[in-house]
Amino acid sequence: MPTKKLHMAWFGIAGPGGSAGDWKRTVDGYDWRHPEIYQDIARVCERAKFDLMLFADQYGIPQVYGGNWDHPLKAGLWSPSHDPLPILGALSACTSKIGLVATFSTTFFPPYLLARLLASLDHFSRGRIGWNVVTSTKKSAALSFGMDDLVEHDERYNIADEYLALCNALWSSWEPDALVMDRDADIFADPSKVHTVDFQGKYFKSLGVLNVPSSPQGRPVIVQAGGSPRGQRFAAEHAEMVIINKTSVEGLRDYTRSMRGLLAQAGRDPMSCKILCGVRPVFGETESIAKEKWEALAAEATVETGLVSLSEQTGIDMSAYELDSPLPAGLKGPGMQSKLPEHSRHGPVTLRQIALSEARHDNFPIYGTADHIADVLEQTAIDGDADGFYLRAGLHNVAYLIEFVDKVVPVLQRRGLLRKEYSGTTLRHHLFEY
Amino acid sequence: MPTKKLHMAWFGIAGPGGSAGDWKRTVDGYDWRHPEIYQDIARVCERAKFDLMLFADQYGIPQVYGGNWDHPLKAGLWSPSHDPLPILGALSACTSKIGLVATFSTTFFPPYLLARLLASLDHFSRGRIGWNVVTSTKKSAALSFGMDDLVEHDERYNIADEYLALCNALWSSWEPDALVMDRDADIFADPSKVHTVDFQGKYFKSLGVLNVPSSPQGRPVIVQAGGSPRGQRFAAEHAEMVIINKTSVEGLRDYTRSMRGLLAQAGRDPMSCKILCGVRPVFGETESIAKEKWEALAAEATVETGLVSLSEQTGIDMSAYELDSPLPAGLKGPGMQSKLPEHSRHGPVTLRQIALSEARHDNFPIYGTADHIADVLEQTAIDGDADGFYLRAGLHNVAYLIEFVDKVVPVLQRRGLLRKEYSGTTLRHHLFEY
Repeated sequence: MPTKKLHMAWFGIAGPGGSAGDWKRTVDGYDWRHPEIYQDIARVCERAKFDLMLFADQYGIPQVYGGNWDHPLKAGLWSPSHDPLPILGALSACTSKIGLVATFSTTFFPPYLLARLLASLDHFSRGRIGWNVVTSTKKSAALSFGMDDLVEHDERYNIADEYLALCNALWSSWEPDALVMDRDADIFADPSKVHTVDFQGKYFKSLGVLNVPSSPQGRPVIVQAGGSPRGQRFAAEHAEMVIINKTSVEGLRDYTRSMRGLLAQAGRDPMSCKILCGVRPVFGETESIAKEKWEALAAEATVETGLVSLSEQTGIDMSAYELDSPLPAGLKGPGMQSKLPEHSRHGPVTLRQIALSEARHDNFPIYGTADHIADVLEQTAIDGDADGFYLRAGLHNVAYLIEFVDKVVPVLQRRGLLRKEYSGTTLRHHLFEY
Repeated sequence: MPTKKLHMAWFGIAGPGGSAGDWKRTVDGYDWRHPEIYQDIARVCERAKFDLMLFADQYGIPQVYGGNWDHPLKAGLWSPSHDPLPILGALSACTSKIGLVATFSTTFFPPYLLARLLASLDHFSRGRIGWNVVTSTKKSAALSFGMDDLVEHDERYNIADEYLALCNALWSSWEPDALVMDRDADIFADPSKVHTVDFQGKYFKSLGVLNVPSSPQGRPVIVQAGGSPRGQRFAAEHAEMVIINKTSVEGLRDYTRSMRGLLAQAGRDPMSCKILCGVRPVFGETESIAKEKWEALAAEATVETGLVSLSEQTGIDMSAYELDSPLPAGLKGPGMQSKLPEHSRHGPVTLRQIALSEARHDNFPIYGTADHIADVLEQTAIDGDADGFYLRAGLHNVAYLIEFVDKVVPVLQRRGLLRKEYSGTTLRHHLFEY
C-alpha cells in the first residue's frame, strides 16, 4: 500500500480563540488586531508546505451562557474577532502557495457581494481561495443583522443550497477565456463570452453579471463543517473538503463512512471530498516531557470555558443544567446539532465531563515525540479513513505552531506523509493533485 | 497669509478605469488582477506623503449606453473590477502611513457587516481607513442584488442617513478603553464597557454588539462624493472629506461656497470637511513638451468612451440623443444628478462636446512644467477654496503617477504646499492635523 499523503491545515480565528487565556500566549510584539501575526503564521505554514489555513468566524459576542457576556469578555473567549476578508487580502500578497480559506455565512452576506469578493480574492491570490460555507447557528447574530429570529436549522441549508447555485451561476457568467487583454488587437474582453445571469429562486433572485472575470480556480474551493445529517447532505452535494471534530478514531471512521456514502449517493466519487479532522498534538523531546506538557495544558482548561463554548455552539444555556448529571436525552438547541451527540457517543457522561472535554479540545489526545505523533497521525488517518488533519492551534499559539512545524513536520515529510515541496500553486491542486 | 497646505490623494478603481485603453498603459509585469500593482502604487504614494488613496467601486458592467456592454468590455472601460476590500487588507500590511479609503454602498452591504469590516480594517491598518459612502446609482446593480428597482435618488440618502446612524452606534458599542488585554490582571476585556446596541429605525434595525472593539480612529473617516443638493446635505451632515469634479475654478468656488455654507447650517465648522478636487496635470520638461503630451492624451479620447461614461453615471442612454445638438433642458435620469448640469454650466454645448470633455477628464486642463503645475494647483486651491486635490491617475497609469511624484511633488514640498514628512499615523491626523 502506498504511503498515505496527508493534507495539513492550520485552523484559527482572527482574535482570541476558544481556550481561556489563549490570548496571553504570544509575546507582546504580536497583537491580533494587526497584520504581523497573521503574516508570520502564514509564512510558517507555507514553509511547512501545509495545504491551507482556515479562518473560522462568527458575529457578536458569546452571551448564551448565563445570558450575558461577562465571562467570555473577561477571559478572552471567541470574541471579538476580525472579519477574515481583509486578512485573506493581506495573506494573498505575502504568500504564494498556501491555500487561504475563510468562513462566510450564507445567512448574512448578500450572494452577489460574496460571489464577487471571493472571485476577486481568487484572482488576488492567484487561485488559492477556499470558502468555508456556514449557515450560521446563532440567534444573536441574526438579531444583530436586523432579523427577528434565526431561520430553522434544516431550512438554513435549503437556503444555502440555492445560495450556492446562484454563486455558481455568477462565477460562470464569464467564460474562462472571456478576458483577453490583448494589447496588439486592442481588445480587453470578448463581450460574446460574458453572459447575463437571470436567476429566479425561491429565496434569491439576481439579474446581471459578475463584474469580476472567471478566476484562476473558476470558483473557490468549497469547504464545509456541518456534522448534522442535513449538514452532511449539504456537504455531499457541494463540498470539496470538510473539517470535522471527533473524540475518537471510531467516531471519525463512522463519520467518514457516512460522508463517503452520501457522496456516492449524490453521484460523486467518495474520495472527491477531502476529510480533515481536528487535532492538537503536543510535542515533547521525550514521552514524559510530552505527557507533562499535555497535562499542564489540560489543567488550564476550566469547566466554565467549556460551558461557554457548548452554550454558544448549541444555543442552549448550559447554566440551567446540573453539572454532575448527564444532560437530558435528546436535548436539542437552535444551533449546532452534532455537538452533544458526539460528546456522549461513548455512553452517559456528566455535563462537567463534557465541558472539560470541550474546554480541553481533547477530541484526540495525542502527545509524544515527533515519531510518536507521526505514528498516531498516520494510523488515525488510515483507521479513520481521513485525508488529513487541521491543527487546532489557534491564532495566539505561534510558538506551538512553530514547534510542530520544526519538530514534527520534518518527520512527516521524511516518511512521505507530507509533501516536501508544493507541486502546484492553487488550493485545488494541493487538495487533489497533491 | 501662510502657505496653503494641500491634501493630496490618488484616485482609481481596482481594474480598467474610465479612459479607453488605460489598461494598456502598464508593462506586462503588472496585472490589475494581482496585488503587486496596488502595492507599488501605495508605496509610491506613501513616498510622496500623500494623505490617502481612494478606490472607487461599482457593481455590474456598463450597459446603459445602447443597452449592451459590447463597447465597455472591448475597450476595457470601468469594468470588471475588484471589490476594494481585500486590497485594503493587503495595503494595510505593506504601508504604514498613507490613508486607505474605499467606496462601499449603503444600498448593498448589510450595515452590521460593513461596520464590522471597517472596524477590522481600521485596526488592521492601525487607524488609516476611510469610507467613501455611496448610495449607488445603477439600476443594473440593484437587479444583480435581487432588488426590483433602484430606490429613488433622495430616498437613497434618507436610507444612508439611518445607515450611518446605525454604524455609529455599532462603532460606539465598545468604549475606547474596553479592550484591556492585561496579562498580569488576567483580563482580556472589561464587560462593563461593552454595550448592547438596540437600534430601531425606519429602514434598519439591529439588536446586538459589534464583535470588534473600538478602532484606532473610533470610526473610519467618512468621505463623500455626492454633488446633488441632497448629496451635499448628506455630506454636510456626515462627511470629513468630499471629493468633487469640476470643469472650472468658478465651478469649484461655487461648490465649496455652497458646501461650506451647508456645513455651517448643519452646525459644523465650515472647514471641518476637507474638499478635494479632481485633477490630472500633465507634466513636461518644457511648456511645449507638456502641451504636446496633453494634446496626445486628449486625442486618445473618443466620443463613444464619453457617451458610455455619461450614460452609465446618469442612467440615461445617450445613444438616443443627437450628437450635435444640446441635450434637452432639464434631462434627468435615475443616477448621478450633478453630472449634466456641471457639463453645461458655461452655456449650451452639444452632446458631442460633453462626451469628449467627459472622455478627456479635462475638467481642469493643467499642463506644463513642475513649477507651472505647482502654480496652478496653489492658485486653484486658493481661488476655489479647495483643501487639496486627488489625482485622477487611474490604476494603470503607474508611470504617470511616478512622474508626477518625482517631478512635481518635490516642487510642491519645496514651496511648503505639501508635507515633507508625515506628522502622524492616522488618516484623520493627516487631514486635520496635517
